[in-house]
Amino acid sequence: MQWTPSGDRNLQPMSDEYYMGLALDMARHTQGQTGINPVVGSVVVRDGAVVGMGAHLKRGEGHAEVQALQMAGERAEGSTVYVTLEPCSHYGATPPCSKRLIEAGVSRVVVACEDPNPQVSGRGIAMLKEAGITVETGVMAEEARQLNKKFIKFITTGLPFVTLKTASTLDGKIATRTGDSKWVTGEAARQLVHTMRHQHAAILVGVNTVIADDPSLTTRLPVPGLSPIRVIVDSKLRIPDDARVLKPVVYGDPETILLTTMNHGNVEKQLLLESKGIRVIPCGGGERVDLHEGLKQLALSGISSVLVEGGGTIGGAFLAEKLVDEVQLFLAPKLLGSGGIDSFGFAGPSRMKEAIALTNLQITPAGKDLLLTGTPSWEG
Amino acid sequence: MQWTPSGDRNLQPMSDEYYMGLALDMARHTQGQTGINPVVGSVVVRDGAVVGMGAHLKRGEGHAEVQALQMAGERAEGSTVYVTLEPCSHYGATPPCSKRLIEAGVSRVVVACEDPNPQVSGRGIAMLKEAGITVETGVMAEEARQLNKKFIKFITTGLPFVTLKTASTLDGKIATRTGDSKWVTGEAARQLVHTMRHQHAAILVGVNTVIADDPSLTTRLPVPGLSPIRVIVDSKLRIPDDARVLKPVVYGDPETILLTTMNHGNVEKQLLLESKGIRVIPCGGGERVDLHEGLKQLALSGISSVLVEGGGTIGGAFLAEKLVDEVQLFLAPKLLGSGGIDSFGFAGPSRMKEAIALTNLQITPAGKDLLLTGTPSWEG
Repeated sequence: MQWTPSGDRNLQPMSDEYYMGLALDMARHTQGQTGINPVVGSVVVRDGAVVGMGAHLKRGEGHAEVQALQMAGERAEGSTVYVTLEPCSHYGATPPCSKRLIEAGVSRVVVACEDPNPQVSGRGIAMLKEAGITVETGVMAEEARQLNKKFIKFITTGLPFVTLKTASTLDGKIATRTGDSKWVTGEAARQLVHTMRHQHAAILVGVNTVIADDPSLTTRLPVPGLSPIRVIVDSKLRIPDDARVLKPVVYGDPETILLTTMNHGNVEKQLLLESKGIRVIPCGGGERVDLHEGLKQLALSGISSVLVEGGGTIGGAFLAEKLVDEVQLFLAPKLLGSGGIDSFGFAGPSRMKEAIALTNLQITPAGKDLLLTGTPSWEG
Repeated sequence: MQWTPSGDRNLQPMSDEYYMGLALDMARHTQGQTGINPVVGSVVVRDGAVVGMGAHLKRGEGHAEVQALQMAGERAEGSTVYVTLEPCSHYGATPPCSKRLIEAGVSRVVVACEDPNPQVSGRGIAMLKEAGITVETGVMAEEARQLNKKFIKFITTGLPFVTLKTASTLDGKIATRTGDSKWVTGEAARQLVHTMRHQHAAILVGVNTVIADDPSLTTRLPVPGLSPIRVIVDSKLRIPDDARVLKPVVYGDPETILLTTMNHGNVEKQLLLESKGIRVIPCGGGERVDLHEGLKQLALSGISSVLVEGGGTIGGAFLAEKLVDEVQLFLAPKLLGSGGIDSFGFAGPSRMKEAIALTNLQITPAGKDLLLTGTPSWEG
């Protein structure tokens, strides 16, 4: 045995962070199941002990604080309530949480970050303060914001959060010169990919990937997961009639959406697809799908996050159009040479200093592969 | 302040590893200056205290044990001598170290690894044992072998150790579509590259790199370093007459060698180059330089390690010919798209499972860049 710096997770110092950490953990584990709503966790503490815990589980159902207050019952009176996102102040699918907290007679509310929705930000906190409740904000705010980055993008821009995921060799190749791509990465990396699918509202690939690999694009994990809505970019409606993505999946029944162009020139095919329940959305009158328009259409359908899984042409197009919010790049420790197929198919800038810089870099080992995460800098 | 797991380097438990660690450290800091000889460190300990330290500094000069015994003087009698490589048993440029250790009357010799030279391996240890000295081997053996991997390759195969160094974007590009490559990586990565140059006997690039960038290929660091011999692969002797690599450098005066073909068809140019002191070595009668033959010729000139620095075509050719012993791949956190120039220019295999797998993987952060180190698996 050696001393390891991981720490004894069973012995953490008690503080506001101690309880907020639990609330964030609960929120973290509901990623993927709240639709266009944020993930939120809440903990109610009174007389030095936890008396309630809750999380927002599904759009249209109770908010985190309400779930936690329900568990607390009468013990909510005089309690401190920890919540990862500012309590709401408006009547939506449910009554405002701030009102519910005031009615329950809580003494103190600790908030990680304010509501990013510009229509309501700060109002819930103001309501609580007016009622004489002590409110503290900013406890573990950055972690809370990271956790809801998809929601924040969606609510502030009206566009889905776009994650671009690729798996390549160390020299940036996703397939050999003959197109063989089985497999770039190992099992551990693929399990992370399926977890990413669970955490996104939609998964998007180009029709060439459908023609080449006929993937099912479902979530397959050691436990059941949610399968995202499948979105195929198909300018000319070339998708094969018997493609797996046109069939319902095993767990759940995610919709399939085809993004195409106004002049795809194949009305018969469109009608056939629509008769099968597939949505066909024309995006722009150009030769290729207008991806910005496509994302707008997906947002209007209630899709707040999209996992772009390839191939290289689609990923390159999203990068060229500056539509990517996060890059998740798996690197396998092998080399394929310049004959292989590139991870991102776009011409790119003429100057090295104009390369797309990534920030917020993170490295996650995944078996013998590496996952590099970064945020593209689009300004300038 | 926080507890950090780095440890107090001033408080290490005393043991054989305690002294061998010092001997290895001394050897480590002489990398690049011993030519075809190994790096070796030695520590002499008596009555619980260090009485001698030494390292092999330069080919033709004293071996590590001899230096350490010299410092110890009469106190060597009855001492324990730590040495990172088996003491030699033969008369070369210097008398055998085993004889010297016996004459000094040492009691115990601790050896990290045996001499990889098949002609002498084990003989030095046998000589010591015959003289009644206690000998222990294998203390920190793997570290000692890693430190002398270049020497081991050279002595066992008659070919130099080949390090392939490249700096690319995360999508495997070393330059933009217009050829701009300034700069892929940051200052911290470039300092490591110059340290690599110091640690290799020769640096090798293709003539296209000379034509495009006119590099000086010298070692430039905050302290003076050794500049390696410069080797240019130039099948048709296209090198410009005024190229920087054809001029002497500031520190030291490294030779420049051109590897070319027998039928380069430019005898006049060859004579001009040779009149300037440049060595021109024909390697094979093909259209391109026979790289295996080139490495053999470099080895015959006493070059035991070669740092291949590019460009993509040369690196790709070395990989395609399976001539690479170690890959040092700097990755900069940016993306250039498929229009950029590939890090390794070769067709590669048709199947993904035939990709060149890297083992012994190491990650070293270098400023905002990453250095990934790996050993290509050539068997199978």
